[in-house]
Amino acid sequence: MSIATATWIDGEPATALPLPDRALEFGDGLFETLLLRRGKPLYQDIHLERLAHGLQVLDFPDCMAAAAQQLGHAAAAAGEFGWQWTALRLTVSRGSGPRGYAPPVAARPRIIITVTALERHCQNMSSPAKLSLSTVRWPTQPALAGLKHLNRLEQVMAAAQCRSQGADEALMLDQSGHLVSVVAGNLFLLSGGQLLTPALQHCGIAGTRRRLVIERWAAGAGLAVQECTLGLDQLASADEVFYSNSLMGVRPVSRCGELQWDSSAVCQALFEQYRRELP
Amino acid sequence: MSIATATWIDGEPATALPLPDRALEFGDGLFETLLLRRGKPLYQDIHLERLAHGLQVLDFPDCMAAAAQQLGHAAAAAGEFGWQWTALRLTVSRGSGPRGYAPPVAARPRIIITVTALERHCQNMSSPAKLSLSTVRWPTQPALAGLKHLNRLEQVMAAAQCRSQGADEALMLDQSGHLVSVVAGNLFLLSGGQLLTPALQHCGIAGTRRRLVIERWAAGAGLAVQECTLGLDQLASADEVFYSNSLMGVRPVSRCGELQWDSSAVCQALFEQYRRELP
Repeated sequence: MSIATATWIDGEPATALPLPDRALEFGDGLFETLLLRRGKPLYQDIHLERLAHGLQVLDFPDCMAAAAQQLGHAAAAAGEFGWQWTALRLTVSRGSGPRGYAPPVAARPRIIITVTALERHCQNMSSPAKLSLSTVRWPTQPALAGLKHLNRLEQVMAAAQCRSQGADEALMLDQSGHLVSVVAGNLFLLSGGQLLTPALQHCGIAGTRRRLVIERWAAGAGLAVQECTLGLDQLASADEVFYSNSLMGVRPVSRCGELQWDSSAVCQALFEQYRRELP
Repeated sequence: MSIATATWIDGEPATALPLPDRALEFGDGLFETLLLRRGKPLYQDIHLERLAHGLQVLDFPDCMAAAAQQLGHAAAAAGEFGWQWTALRLTVSRGSGPRGYAPPVAARPRIIITVTALERHCQNMSSPAKLSLSTVRWPTQPALAGLKHLNRLEQVMAAAQCRSQGADEALMLDQSGHLVSVVAGNLFLLSGGQLLTPALQHCGIAGTRRRLVIERWAAGAGLAVQECTLGLDQLASADEVFYSNSLMGVRPVSRCGELQWDSSAVCQALFEQYRRELP
């Protein structure tokens, strides 16, 4: 079975990346994964805001207008393919440059967009996830915390380990053993009627759906969210656990090792908020 | 002026990387930078040993025979081009895979080799370097410390900052403020007649020339090397400072901010060891 997918580089259909490229050489770039429904990107503004922030931190030349324009083109193409649900990955590389770590003074970023048809019906909440506890921990790096940059080896290793353990997702800790996230999503605990989520000053990715839970969906469900330092003990005593990501919205967690949660009421309430916002 | 360079992917001349590729997507791979003299790689065994170790940590399928064979081919080509000195970058990507962090179970690594002619005469020791102190710190990640993997954003940022400060190289610290390295090289201090170099349990790259200083060249100069935790106070009180990398061997440091060093006698003695080993 062939997977339905298409790629553009700088707006042109492409099957290969021109070399040299600093994203290949050093992970010198950023990315976003957007969900599209019938060719319409969800929460595009929030994705582009995070991307713009990342470009600023990495001192890339401004290429947001081109990114937005090419994103619109690729999304429209996915709609024309007739795809109901699409994952769109937008990667911005710093582009070509001479040998060595130093980026060119006048870098010309390259925009790589890939769309992939999804088989899942994303308007339905995903079934509860069974988590393993990853032994791979996030690196401590306040200078890059929150960004969705291209240096993602820890998540690659954790995802491989997760699969070998037969789990749906894996819980990842920081270097001090505090909770951070799952491999591809942000973590939330319900505790004493309040939502808690790991603060991300030292590591982790500030997910778009995490932001929506904090700024909008939690309030819509009558809850407040606190960003704080959380340990495995707080996980053990949580009344409900779920995670958020761009392709699933929010997804309940039913197990993590020996721990079990039967309730997913808050996650369901948040998913309802999300579902109502779908285009 | 065109830069003399050539690239091969999996042994074939190439100007573009087939997509998808996980090195582009996640920095999922490793690299080595070798110095060639008249098409002969220096210290190839040590480079390939580090690469093999990295492949093991990242759980790549064994591709060392192909890497060595293609390295030999590219090095010979650089010799046939008539280049006296060549930088050869060997990158191993995990190759293609489906969308998402999890690597394919049966990954087929891709080997990308680029040779670039160097203008510098590498049999001569480089002039003393002026260092700036980078505000970009290494991430704390014991699981990947020492490896030359493709997640190199900190060095990219530090190199950009270094250039904007008009320095030759930049000193990089760890998250606790201890000395680690320069952007593209390992650091050594001469203190009380002994060589000291930062231990690399938490971050940094275990350079091939660092290993040669520790295992061979220092003894040849009548010195011992201690790997330890070092701070800026030890830098300030050092009698001599230098760094090592694959293209320069060892290079003296003359300044770092307000600090100054006039002596480079030990660095010169080590460079002599190195020079005698050149093919």
